[in-house]
Amino acid sequence: MTGEQYLDSLRDGRRVALDGVLLPDVTADPGLGNAARWVATGYDRIRSGYPDGVNPIYQIPRTVEDLRARLDLVQESDVTVALTSAVLALLTAAPRLATANPAYRERILHYFEDCRRRDVRFAEVITDAKGDRSLPPGKQDDPDLYLRVVDRDGDGIVINGAKFHITMGPLVHELVVMPTKRMKPGEEQYAVACAVPVNSPGVTQIATSPHPRGSDGRSHPVSGRHTDPDSIVIFDHVHVPYERVFLDGEVEESAVVAHSLGLWERVNGVADMARLGDLLVGMAQLVAEANGVDRIPHIKDKIAEMVIYATLVRAGLEASIAGATHTEDGMIAPNELYANAAKYHAAAHYPVMVRNLHDIAGGAVATAPSMADYDNPQLRPYIDKYLRTMPGVDGYYRMRLFHLIRDVTADALGGRELVSWLQSGGGLFAQRTVTRKHYDIEAAKDLARRAGGLLDGAEPASYPDGHG
Amino acid sequence: MTGEQYLDSLRDGRRVALDGVLLPDVTADPGLGNAARWVATGYDRIRSGYPDGVNPIYQIPRTVEDLRARLDLVQESDVTVALTSAVLALLTAAPRLATANPAYRERILHYFEDCRRRDVRFAEVITDAKGDRSLPPGKQDDPDLYLRVVDRDGDGIVINGAKFHITMGPLVHELVVMPTKRMKPGEEQYAVACAVPVNSPGVTQIATSPHPRGSDGRSHPVSGRHTDPDSIVIFDHVHVPYERVFLDGEVEESAVVAHSLGLWERVNGVADMARLGDLLVGMAQLVAEANGVDRIPHIKDKIAEMVIYATLVRAGLEASIAGATHTEDGMIAPNELYANAAKYHAAAHYPVMVRNLHDIAGGAVATAPSMADYDNPQLRPYIDKYLRTMPGVDGYYRMRLFHLIRDVTADALGGRELVSWLQSGGGLFAQRTVTRKHYDIEAAKDLARRAGGLLDGAEPASYPDGHG
Amino acid sequence: MTGEQYLDSLRDGRRVALDGVLLPDVTADPGLGNAARWVATGYDRIRSGYPDGVNPIYQIPRTVEDLRARLDLVQESDVTVALTSAVLALLTAAPRLATANPAYRERILHYFEDCRRRDVRFAEVITDAKGDRSLPPGKQDDPDLYLRVVDRDGDGIVINGAKFHITMGPLVHELVVMPTKRMKPGEEQYAVACAVPVNSPGVTQIATSPHPRGSDGRSHPVSGRHTDPDSIVIFDHVHVPYERVFLDGEVEESAVVAHSLGLWERVNGVADMARLGDLLVGMAQLVAEANGVDRIPHIKDKIAEMVIYATLVRAGLEASIAGATHTEDGMIAPNELYANAAKYHAAAHYPVMVRNLHDIAGGAVATAPSMADYDNPQLRPYIDKYLRTMPGVDGYYRMRLFHLIRDVTADALGGRELVSWLQSGGGLFAQRTVTRKHYDIEAAKDLARRAGGLLDGAEPASYPDGHG
Amino acid sequence: MTGEQYLDSLRDGRRVALDGVLLPDVTADPGLGNAARWVATGYDRIRSGYPDGVNPIYQIPRTVEDLRARLDLVQESDVTVALTSAVLALLTAAPRLATANPAYRERILHYFEDCRRRDVRFAEVITDAKGDRSLPPGKQDDPDLYLRVVDRDGDGIVINGAKFHITMGPLVHELVVMPTKRMKPGEEQYAVACAVPVNSPGVTQIATSPHPRGSDGRSHPVSGRHTDPDSIVIFDHVHVPYERVFLDGEVEESAVVAHSLGLWERVNGVADMARLGDLLVGMAQLVAEANGVDRIPHIKDKIAEMVIYATLVRAGLEASIAGATHTEDGMIAPNELYANAAKYHAAAHYPVMVRNLHDIAGGAVATAPSMADYDNPQLRPYIDKYLRTMPGVDGYYRMRLFHLIRDVTADALGGRELVSWLQSGGGLFAQRTVTRKHYDIEAAKDLARRAGGLLDGAEPASYPDGHG
Repeated sequence: MTGEQYLDSLRDGRRVALDGVLLPDVTADPGLGNAARWVATGYDRIRSGYPDGVNPIYQIPRTVEDLRARLDLVQESDVTVALTSAVLALLTAAPRLATANPAYRERILHYFEDCRRRDVRFAEVITDAKGDRSLPPGKQDDPDLYLRVVDRDGDGIVINGAKFHITMGPLVHELVVMPTKRMKPGEEQYAVACAVPVNSPGVTQIATSPHPRGSDGRSHPVSGRHTDPDSIVIFDHVHVPYERVFLDGEVEESAVVAHSLGLWERVNGVADMARLGDLLVGMAQLVAEANGVDRIPHIKDKIAEMVIYATLVRAGLEASIAGATHTEDGMIAPNELYANAAKYHAAAHYPVMVRNLHDIAGGAVATAPSMADYDNPQLRPYIDKYLRTMPGVDGYYRMRLFHLIRDVTADALGGRELVSWLQSGGGLFAQRTVTRKHYDIEAAKDLARRAGGLLDGAEPASYPDGHG
Repeated sequence: MTGEQYLDSLRDGRRVALDGVLLPDVTADPGLGNAARWVATGYDRIRSGYPDGVNPIYQIPRTVEDLRARLDLVQESDVTVALTSAVLALLTAAPRLATANPAYRERILHYFEDCRRRDVRFAEVITDAKGDRSLPPGKQDDPDLYLRVVDRDGDGIVINGAKFHITMGPLVHELVVMPTKRMKPGEEQYAVACAVPVNSPGVTQIATSPHPRGSDGRSHPVSGRHTDPDSIVIFDHVHVPYERVFLDGEVEESAVVAHSLGLWERVNGVADMARLGDLLVGMAQLVAEANGVDRIPHIKDKIAEMVIYATLVRAGLEASIAGATHTEDGMIAPNELYANAAKYHAAAHYPVMVRNLHDIAGGAVATAPSMADYDNPQLRPYIDKYLRTMPGVDGYYRMRLFHLIRDVTADALGGRELVSWLQSGGGLFAQRTVTRKHYDIEAAKDLARRAGGLLDGAEPASYPDGHG
Repeated sequence: MTGEQYLDSLRDGRRVALDGVLLPDVTADPGLGNAARWVATGYDRIRSGYPDGVNPIYQIPRTVEDLRARLDLVQESDVTVALTSAVLALLTAAPRLATANPAYRERILHYFEDCRRRDVRFAEVITDAKGDRSLPPGKQDDPDLYLRVVDRDGDGIVINGAKFHITMGPLVHELVVMPTKRMKPGEEQYAVACAVPVNSPGVTQIATSPHPRGSDGRSHPVSGRHTDPDSIVIFDHVHVPYERVFLDGEVEESAVVAHSLGLWERVNGVADMARLGDLLVGMAQLVAEANGVDRIPHIKDKIAEMVIYATLVRAGLEASIAGATHTEDGMIAPNELYANAAKYHAAAHYPVMVRNLHDIAGGAVATAPSMADYDNPQLRPYIDKYLRTMPGVDGYYRMRLFHLIRDVTADALGGRELVSWLQSGGGLFAQRTVTRKHYDIEAAKDLARRAGGLLDGAEPASYPDGHG
Repeated sequence: MTGEQYLDSLRDGRRVALDGVLLPDVTADPGLGNAARWVATGYDRIRSGYPDGVNPIYQIPRTVEDLRARLDLVQESDVTVALTSAVLALLTAAPRLATANPAYRERILHYFEDCRRRDVRFAEVITDAKGDRSLPPGKQDDPDLYLRVVDRDGDGIVINGAKFHITMGPLVHELVVMPTKRMKPGEEQYAVACAVPVNSPGVTQIATSPHPRGSDGRSHPVSGRHTDPDSIVIFDHVHVPYERVFLDGEVEESAVVAHSLGLWERVNGVADMARLGDLLVGMAQLVAEANGVDRIPHIKDKIAEMVIYATLVRAGLEASIAGATHTEDGMIAPNELYANAAKYHAAAHYPVMVRNLHDIAGGAVATAPSMADYDNPQLRPYIDKYLRTMPGVDGYYRMRLFHLIRDVTADALGGRELVSWLQSGGGLFAQRTVTRKHYDIEAAKDLARRAGGLLDGAEPASYPDGHG
């Protein structure tokens, strides 16, 4: 698909609302249109790099080198590349789902081939409305608060429910729907996984987007150019044909797809946050130099802390790649322990790194003039004169640097990022719990028992005593 | 002054630019107008509570009770009440300035009386453009990068320069201008303090404001109602008559006003952040209850951490009030040590508290629909159905709660707050340094010497050994 | 009682074991003897300051000034002064206990008078053996794992059990025994509070003490002079006459005494940790000066962080005193909210402050020679030559300074302190929970509701917007 | 060399003082003897695993597999294995030193071969006395405060000075002496690197050792079995023949050896701290299970935090191995960036992990009875009864578990560890600085410039936007 074809493909009758308006054409909206054009550019760039026209994002990674190439591509590309994990997760889950019903594997393989042929993009559709979190799906007073099968016929099922925080929902082609957690006996109607075209009848999205509205988009160097919209996707009696249904009532297997996806989600997240860490360091160093404070000890200390943060996150990524293992199908899977620990660390300390950046940059992050101010001939000379600091750092450059920092960390996009980096992967508690699950705690207990001589007859362990 | 008279008083020919436009009437701008109307309400509220028409913000605090009343008023009022500290600082500095020139004290007293009579409001005008931070004012390649006296005549001085991060600059009457730091011999032209009416010829402000633009203001429950604008104030050959000049070349005294102001700034900041801490706790508890997670242990833990944060900040405020001392003029001054330590703690850990709030609230902080979505009859039933969680928590209430959290912590206003809470008081390094300065480190050294028996013949100190 | 009389009073047949030996005379043991002599000194000092012979530690505090005087005395005295809180807690609890049985109040008042007359000291005897923490007292497979009444006769009760972590148990006169928590119906045998003389038949203590053994006590400037022993107190069929029984089966009131004590424990703890914070700062500054690094920016930064820590803890103490309230009996009670928040902060961050101190001091904290090395004429010249740094900082002084830091933070005493400061007050979770309980969360919720306009018809709250 | 031969080799006339006494035979001292026997065991174990008698610690690592094998050996062995880094560092530095004087390389190669043949062990002898840290070596009022050449003859040089914090100095054969930092012109006498046999005339060591003294060694399960002594090594007119001199006046090359060593020191440190992290987790989980609290949410949270700590440190180790590069000589060198970042993180957060462990374990870490108490038949039944918690957790086991935790984290050894883990690698500031040095900050700046559109004409970078 070319970028132009991609843009055309979005004019398919989908129902997407933004700021209260159901958009007749998502590409015509200033915010969503920018986001779509960014994805379109990616289509063209990937095509140009692969003259045989085979999209590498559909390639199944089988070696450490494949894995690294994939994660490099994720860091360099728009988010829809990372979101292809949705179909990788389906492939990973297929053998296990086949134990419930062999047809599920066949449908997944067929679906994968079809999507690859059409070169489409996906949203990961997981989080339910959930209602009262202290009650299970079946005890909510409105049964639709978790997505469920409400009806069926000879051709397929009919589903109801809403899914939240759907990144890029308004701008992809396929919604890969799965349960948010393991269901229990009696909750069969909630054990449903399937794929739904975005423009299916009964699908409505209420989108949010942190792009600048009404104001000077040029003063938002990142979000004025593109941002990723999120949406709530409502399924109101949506019919899904059986060939697109991959789980249908088997509560035992209800968490399999989400679990397979979690692995890819978190390693993608670590890759993105490693890059984000580098970006934070870069902005901090640029603004320290522009302000003339890059040699002040406490500034250097703060930047060094940011360097250590970025490096530790990347160490987790590298360890996850170096320690990758093969699934029984021969796909390569990044090490989950390292990926999760690094994801947790990245998310937990991100706000402190933003604080360091703001502490270094100073108040002009909030108070720098806008591009419109700069256009005004009565104001421009003042900006040129007073934002400037030294030869090589003129007022225009420094103003733009403050715009970058504000846009990414202290404005609508920055606020969305604070929430998103934290919540992707399920919030700090979930990330901590998953890390704990993958850690070999029995080995650690054994190490302690041996160090303390708590096992009769065993050779004592070496206490880690090296301070060489 | 009534609220209406206040609004009238802003139509005085002042030059204020916002988003590239020089506003003919600041009260007519949607953002600045809201801010002005909020101040106007405060004028009326204070008047109604004090039937004799004497504005309590001009009352000199002389007792602990006065101090507490003042700080309560600061917490309950718009920021212009706190900014009255500018004239308190002048009064505090007056005796010291009089040692340089007795006229300064006379001028300050006269200015204070005049302002009280007119019932005007102030901006604290301190931070210079600064240029290359590694060079002193006199070594910048543009001498105006710190505000300075460029000319004088028999009636007064003429000043040039720009002052940054001027909270409420566009909406007050008086600019209280002072040097940002102690000047050195040879920097006499930079040792200037004075008061300048906002509408003086040569004064231009380039304002910024985090109010919502173009979008649905109702989805921003706080910033859609009012926000505090900041500005860069440019002084372009502004003439200031001598009766408004309080320092004019005496480098020894150049930091006196800023230092006097620092005390009030930080204790005001602690008062506001104590209240902010309570607000964060309140939002966290409301959203935990609305989501049905308020009894989950890790949620309770996070809220307890926020409670401890809010309480420690308030403990600093209370200790600062309880330990207040009198100046030689009989004014009461809050304890600086406790105020500074609490201010530092509040600023340093604020981003972590915001993270806790986001971790508790979940992704809907970023993805909740807008009020305009709610107005759309095709969308409203979905919002009512899927944002709702339980009896007593309907979709509308929960959506609005997410709006509040997003507006205050994860959108344009929230971003500005991240920067402002950190930078007010001068950034973490400055706050740390000031705290250290007020701490009695000789007493601490003596305690250590005695505990270690390092002083021959002295009675050993009690080591603090109580684990009762 | 004079110091000498106090030492005599400890030779009363008490059964105290240390390092495997039941001591015939606790004052004859090098470690416990030092601790006892330290308390004896305190007896004499307090007497000399109060010529009428009335011991101020028995004075009931009724005003803020009394409270401050008491907390000053706690900071300056050995820990038995703080432990007098045990009887204050009984007095505070008396009215409530009287509702269960009026005799309890009478017995407490009589006991208090008797103790005051005899000028004795107390241990707070609370923490049970507890067995499996996941089971209640009545479900343990050994019923004695919580202390309980196993028999009774016309004169009194017979108790069995063990109490852990009893500070100064070996060196006081009276064990004030109370349940560790609220008991439930069916657990009446565990709802027992009473006072037991240390030398009662059936009472055995297994003591621990962090004083230096076998090595050069002079190289431990604090613990070589005195340390507070802890003990496990075993009650093996101990008979307690009814006049010393203050609770006997009333499960509803079982937590009353411990709760009353908690308040005093934590405010005493805050007072001690405020002083400890100052001591840490003092050691850091002394060693920075001795090493010639006190002007290095990152060293100054670390000390400033320690200053802020010490100041915030003291702010909590001051706010707790300033906000004290009266009980119905007219006793003054420190504010619990501020005391608990500060106690939590002090305990949670203490290890990081120790880390800062070690980072400043360098490796000689671990590797400085001992006093015995210094006595050796073949080694002394080397120590004089190579531990010395500059005029005024000779090798002996610097060696002793490292001894102080090692003893207090990086040796047997230091290790015990890491555990004790953390666990006193019940561990971080308990401290957090108690703080939360005393915080007015409904007021915080109301503040949030008003800020967000979530209450129809109510006046919106001022958002804390002051960045003056 | 066999273990027995190693013990014999220590009776070589070396001058080692401990606790004020110059020991005639280090192996006869209880503390140093235990440490020596531990090393002896290692000699025998390594020999038995390598039947050709070639000691693997002398093998030059040339591949990633070699490197991993070496670091595994470091984790499993006594610290003298890690200390072999001293000669690896000499080898790494040899090409660079040869540029100053080709003889240096020859001498190093010859020395290496000789040591391998003799199968000896090394101490890394770096840190000078330093005197006043604010002055350079040549400005100290005692010129010996940095080690220096004071004389020379036709056969060699004569050196004076003291070196601090020499791990295992009393128990190795060879002292590898090097300058602590880069010297400046005029400081030629301080630019000296050489190898000195421990028993050389004029070498005196003042040792420290955290083994238990006078008390029951069995209550110290780790330090009662073995600990690593440190020492101050004094060089009092020590003659070093030229064939053992590797640097002699060339200030330009003075930091080369220390820099080469730093790499190996820090990666060894990361390997040890990764293992230490696992040990902390193991102790925490064992004691949580023994107390019956392993299912309590806040306990699980704390252990999960410890798991993440241990995993991140190990991720740094794994990334350092995976990213290893070859030196020009074909030796493999671990990646410095990842090793340093992980070392910093491990050192900075270690005290908080210890705090978590103590918070989980409870006060019995400090107050558990000793083995001698357990031997006493009057006390043992009480310990059996009251330390026990549940079937499978008897009193003896639980007491021993508390001994382990206390010994490693809250007693003399634990205190020494707090200092050592922090200071190895040079303290937090040095570790931060080195990490910063190895980070590609220009790439980060470029990323920021491209994200912000700050480079005219360049293609904008992808903002890391993936929240898949």
